[in-house]
Amino acid sequence: MPEPIEFYFELSSPFGYLGAMRIDEVAARHGRKVKWIPFLLGAVMKQVGTRPLVEYPIKGEYSKHDFARSTRRYGVPFKLPSQFPIAAIAPCRAVIWARGQGEGRDGELAKAYYRAFFQDDRDISDREVALDVASEQGFDRQAVAAGIADEDVKAELKDEVARGIERGVFGSPFFFVDGEPFWGADRLDMIEEWLEKGGW
Amino acid sequence: MPEPIEFYFELSSPFGYLGAMRIDEVAARHGRKVKWIPFLLGAVMKQVGTRPLVEYPIKGEYSKHDFARSTRRYGVPFKLPSQFPIAAIAPCRAVIWARGQGEGRDGELAKAYYRAFFQDDRDISDREVALDVASEQGFDRQAVAAGIADEDVKAELKDEVARGIERGVFGSPFFFVDGEPFWGADRLDMIEEWLEKGGW
Repeated sequence: MPEPIEFYFELSSPFGYLGAMRIDEVAARHGRKVKWIPFLLGAVMKQVGTRPLVEYPIKGEYSKHDFARSTRRYGVPFKLPSQFPIAAIAPCRAVIWARGQGEGRDGELAKAYYRAFFQDDRDISDREVALDVASEQGFDRQAVAAGIADEDVKAELKDEVARGIERGVFGSPFFFVDGEPFWGADRLDMIEEWLEKGGW
Repeated sequence: MPEPIEFYFELSSPFGYLGAMRIDEVAARHGRKVKWIPFLLGAVMKQVGTRPLVEYPIKGEYSKHDFARSTRRYGVPFKLPSQFPIAAIAPCRAVIWARGQGEGRDGELAKAYYRAFFQDDRDISDREVALDVASEQGFDRQAVAAGIADEDVKAELKDEVARGIERGVFGSPFFFVDGEPFWGADRLDMIEEWLEKGGW
């Protein structure tokens, strides 16, 4: 059984969203599964000395144009949220909690959060919204609320972020394919070629 | 006659190099010519608040790995120069001067500079090296030396950089296809699709 593709995503990242909408298909084409790893970019951005794309003059304007164009290319609906960027801690914890709720349920929940944020302009950083979205996905609202507050869940998210930073994750989306690092939704074609050829 | 693809490149940029090695083929496949526009990123980077990729912790290490992997993917030889990055003013002026030396000669000279820098580790920011490389390309050394010192050439390079900044160029390579902006050598596949479909 080949290793799953490790997929690090920040829920506030437009290209993380595009990556999330495409990764299952890419992985399936090559007989791979996806390991969904929620990530919080804030800490590592300080270390690296970068900022959210939209905050740069000139480059920020281009980025907004590029978000819209890149998602449109793949038929993925996209609207820059009115609150952006956000600190998506509650939904990240919910995704971590969902790992224990059946195979693939964490990825489904992550995608639901992305759609809520980038399609429906819902502020998923708000705990109540995070619970709403999870219950719309068929999760028990009380169970999710307990999950978000669970100390083990909190610790697991912290560990994932720390481990990601240690492995060199500095942007979103970030992928590892058999240990090889790829940054950016626009690297998915390269990842496909990498999977076909086993590297070069 | 369709508009040429406008290709802004910084000679000190590894992805500018990769873009330069691929752009002629991409353009030719779609019946386009290429307008080669030498660019100096220094000024705009200050405005935008970015730095050369390799200077960022963590992201810089990834970038070096990605330069090597991305060029290898296309069979383009690459070695990170021992002096890097550089301020490539003399060779930029030579490329501007070469615009008056016959169609396509400026692009040929730009590619020769890129090869000298990223394949042979020659410091093209040095005026003598810049003249050497040009004379190896069949240009008259004295004529290039005069061109580099020419006030009109200097002014034309300044104008190109100012015009580029005005149009939103903030990185290298940067392309305009019928006015549509694209940043990055990894956008060439998107550019091809854009050319095929006339946008989306």
